[in-house]
Amino acid sequence: MTVSAETRLVIVMRTDLGMGKGKIAAQAAHAAVAAAMANVRAPAFADWWRAGQPKVVLKVPDEDTLGLVVAAAEEAGLPVEVVHDAGRTQVAAGTATCCAIGPARGADLHPVTGSLSLL
Amino acid sequence: MTVSAETRLVIVMRTDLGMGKGKIAAQAAHAAVAAAMANVRAPAFADWWRAGQPKVVLKVPDEDTLGLVVAAAEEAGLPVEVVHDAGRTQVAAGTATCCAIGPARGADLHPVTGSLSLL
Repeated sequence: MTVSAETRLVIVMRTDLGMGKGKIAAQAAHAAVAAAMANVRAPAFADWWRAGQPKVVLKVPDEDTLGLVVAAAEEAGLPVEVVHDAGRTQVAAGTATCCAIGPARGADLHPVTGSLSLL
Repeated sequence: MTVSAETRLVIVMRTDLGMGKGKIAAQAAHAAVAAAMANVRAPAFADWWRAGQPKVVLKVPDEDTLGLVVAAAEEAGLPVEVVHDAGRTQVAAGTATCCAIGPARGADLHPVTGSLSLL
């Protein structure tokens, strides 16, 4: 199996909340902005920006799986931002909808997110 | 009609490209990060951040309509970031997939995006 070394941002989205595509897009945008703003001075950020800030959106089936991915990312020392929805539409306030992991090198992300499928 | 004064970021997405929801989410994330990074020192940014960086995702049916919205936003003096896809998946390289307008006050966004529907 080949693992790209490219620096990227991975967004991991729950699929069990019945969110429409606009809602999903907004949650992904929340996660990406949070990750970018929190890591703008990190060494990986400049690489990521130069590469065109690549992003990959993956899926998890439920909150427990999202929690496991977040825990694995934290244990691996990767930057993680969890999005809790404001609850104005579609889901209850405070619901964890997705997370962003990175920007980080593909080889570092792979052990944490390599088994997840594209959304 | 009431117009919220809340500062927000509007993302306007094309619906004619056959993009899946993961692709749409990635494009929205590109647009939001570009808008955030380009406007981090703008007066509206701090308001937007304090408010929880609200985002709204709207839709347009084709490239021409996206172009009209971008032109209207520019003419109104609003910050605009257009996303051109890298073309690795699903759409041709360089395709304009969406734009971000703002962060800006709802009252300033309304003349430009008020007629568009939620994605």
